[in-house]
Amino acid sequence: MHLPEDGEHHVVIVGGGFGGLYAAKALGNKPVRVTFIDRRNYHLFQPLLYQVATGGLSPADIATPLRAIVSRLKNIRVLQADVTDLDPSQQIVYLKDGQVSYDSLIIAAGVTHHYFGHDTWAPLAPGLKTIEGALDLRQRIFSAFERAETEEDTERLNAEMTFVIIGAGPTGVELAGALGELAHHTLINDFRHINTRDVKILLLEGADRVLPPYPPVLSERAAKSLDKLGVTVITGAKVTDIEDHIITYTDGEHTHQIQAATAIWAAGMKASALAHVLAERTGVALDVFGRVKVTEHLTVPGQTDILVIGDLAYREDPAGTPLPGICPVAMQQGGHAAKLILNRLKGKPTKAFRYFDKGSMAVIGRHAAVVNLGRLKFGGFPAWLTWIFIHIAYLIEFDNKLVVLVRWAWNYLTKKKGARLITNRIE
Amino acid sequence: MHLPEDGEHHVVIVGGGFGGLYAAKALGNKPVRVTFIDRRNYHLFQPLLYQVATGGLSPADIATPLRAIVSRLKNIRVLQADVTDLDPSQQIVYLKDGQVSYDSLIIAAGVTHHYFGHDTWAPLAPGLKTIEGALDLRQRIFSAFERAETEEDTERLNAEMTFVIIGAGPTGVELAGALGELAHHTLINDFRHINTRDVKILLLEGADRVLPPYPPVLSERAAKSLDKLGVTVITGAKVTDIEDHIITYTDGEHTHQIQAATAIWAAGMKASALAHVLAERTGVALDVFGRVKVTEHLTVPGQTDILVIGDLAYREDPAGTPLPGICPVAMQQGGHAAKLILNRLKGKPTKAFRYFDKGSMAVIGRHAAVVNLGRLKFGGFPAWLTWIFIHIAYLIEFDNKLVVLVRWAWNYLTKKKGARLITNRIE
Repeated sequence: MHLPEDGEHHVVIVGGGFGGLYAAKALGNKPVRVTFIDRRNYHLFQPLLYQVATGGLSPADIATPLRAIVSRLKNIRVLQADVTDLDPSQQIVYLKDGQVSYDSLIIAAGVTHHYFGHDTWAPLAPGLKTIEGALDLRQRIFSAFERAETEEDTERLNAEMTFVIIGAGPTGVELAGALGELAHHTLINDFRHINTRDVKILLLEGADRVLPPYPPVLSERAAKSLDKLGVTVITGAKVTDIEDHIITYTDGEHTHQIQAATAIWAAGMKASALAHVLAERTGVALDVFGRVKVTEHLTVPGQTDILVIGDLAYREDPAGTPLPGICPVAMQQGGHAAKLILNRLKGKPTKAFRYFDKGSMAVIGRHAAVVNLGRLKFGGFPAWLTWIFIHIAYLIEFDNKLVVLVRWAWNYLTKKKGARLITNRIE
Repeated sequence: MHLPEDGEHHVVIVGGGFGGLYAAKALGNKPVRVTFIDRRNYHLFQPLLYQVATGGLSPADIATPLRAIVSRLKNIRVLQADVTDLDPSQQIVYLKDGQVSYDSLIIAAGVTHHYFGHDTWAPLAPGLKTIEGALDLRQRIFSAFERAETEEDTERLNAEMTFVIIGAGPTGVELAGALGELAHHTLINDFRHINTRDVKILLLEGADRVLPPYPPVLSERAAKSLDKLGVTVITGAKVTDIEDHIITYTDGEHTHQIQAATAIWAAGMKASALAHVLAERTGVALDVFGRVKVTEHLTVPGQTDILVIGDLAYREDPAGTPLPGICPVAMQQGGHAAKLILNRLKGKPTKAFRYFDKGSMAVIGRHAAVVNLGRLKFGGFPAWLTWIFIHIAYLIEFDNKLVVLVRWAWNYLTKKKGARLITNRIE
């Protein structure tokens, strides 16, 4: 164990997502002091937020207190705080309430939703980035079923029974699949007036296929699995307006309107506001989504003591393709950032960052998924098993998420979902 | 399976707690139609709410969707709705949005907090009756630790590190024990500036001992167990004022003030507002806490078609002692109400309701409890095992709460608590 000493190199990490957490872990019990700052008191396993939204898991199943994760790494102190500004020349990070000076700064503040300038859409079609957002969505989904059960007007009933998901990337596909499972398996015995199998789930995608970043063969498989779960995929659909209960989209020629009580946004991302602060203070360039254009070492050009990693960083691979905003990239960048700082202290050089692509995957409903491991591409039940194995392995790494395994096994065997509580009710 | 027919006797149940739920289950697949109304979409296992507040369990671990519980009982329809009024002569229950007519009405709307006329205390010392309340409390508890970690002013630091629980009934005792466990076991490695063992947990009780409804020998044992967990019990203490960060109480002679950032109310209860509506419409007498004084058949005097059960009902046992507001009473009354209605339809008489006391218990921290089974009174680890066994048996009855068993086993072995997320954060 290494206890921090006052004179030691001080690393400040902003953001407790995968990037920040892997950097912190790699700096644990090393000859540096670390201050690990997040607005939340927990690390969130975002890829499973859709399970919280659809009642399959509880927030605590996919989130772990940051303090618990680093409790044995005595050179790391955790601060729950909002970072508001920074001063690169003085090496100071400003908090909402106080300030922290640094020798090295790792910024891993992530991304948030992007409604392409239509901020009024946000409350009507919420996205899925936070636990509160997932619980809000859960409440919307199950309240729609409750209202449908007592609705006598046919038009309003149809709207309650229609769910629109905008964006067919991994999040949109996984959400649509989970909704299909709810309507066609979990809830079929629970209502007396409505037949939950009549629910319409519409998945709108601007590109010409679902999962556009994946190989076409997997998009096809995903579309087939979605179809089996009663999800209607509409590709080439560009949403032009969202009002309460009405979603408007164009297919390029015609304009269509969907009456739906529940709309979910899974389409766009933009960088955390901290990127703009950084651009203002250092002059660093941002890409169109506000992400920070970093050097091959993940540093801010001209500011070797400031590193940006994870979804907030923009970097291309040698072929000129931008690195995707997914967990493995953030994790590897976190490790790289820590290594770079430790090597510098020893006077050793560090190779440029290279992303090692282990593959990607998405899950669709109860036992179908698609997996892309480079040359190896497969779908169906084997893909689902692979998906669940890898996700549980990650969860277990941080904590006692054994419980999730039991819950999933149970959900799988019984087709039940125990976490479909409508909470956050305003009294 | 019995499908409801339109001409059949229609039972309306208001409230999905233990009383209402056991009535509904006893009426399932019987020759009656049942409408089961609750403001929430779930049944809540209230005795474990303190575990949610202290980060040991997630809401979905102790709550089950009502629809899931009765999904196979096809003569029961569930309605998520607020009951606002009733008309006994027309046999109509009014909802916020609509109305339902009944042939028999079972009211099991329960109780809420009572601040003895000091309603301004409610936001300063919240109680523990709902999931939202438990999550609010969880946020207060863990945020106090977070603020303490960065607080430099000694006086403010002491206030953050002080927790006051008002009322040493089972809820107060269990909460105090769980807080003691957090401070002395769970969190000891998680902070760098504060020592969580320095936390002060003060349990204020107006009577002369903790757990006043229990036999004195068990109160003594509970007090000893609390002491081991660092809880300071102050008996004979009557709270006279609660302001932000200041709790004032009198010991009869002197007035004392405690500086504490977190205060929790576990002292008083009053009947749901529906009792007053019922009194207005039927003239039934209420007791001092607003509970409905029912007949020996649990009916409202003069209104044989209206039954009141659970915490909302006031009834004395043959010795003249009021029945306690605990789950077993509510469960047995639910069964009695169903039997009475079914017997009437067959023209059969029903014996007066008699409560069969199976005992009571309370848990204190990680492996101590007290159990009162009439002649058999015991404490310590055997009592804890009994407590956990009975509670899990109840949880499993409703659902797949196997997961809770795994989580508890894990929490017990590791002394960890995974659910200590600070959510509901206002952005």
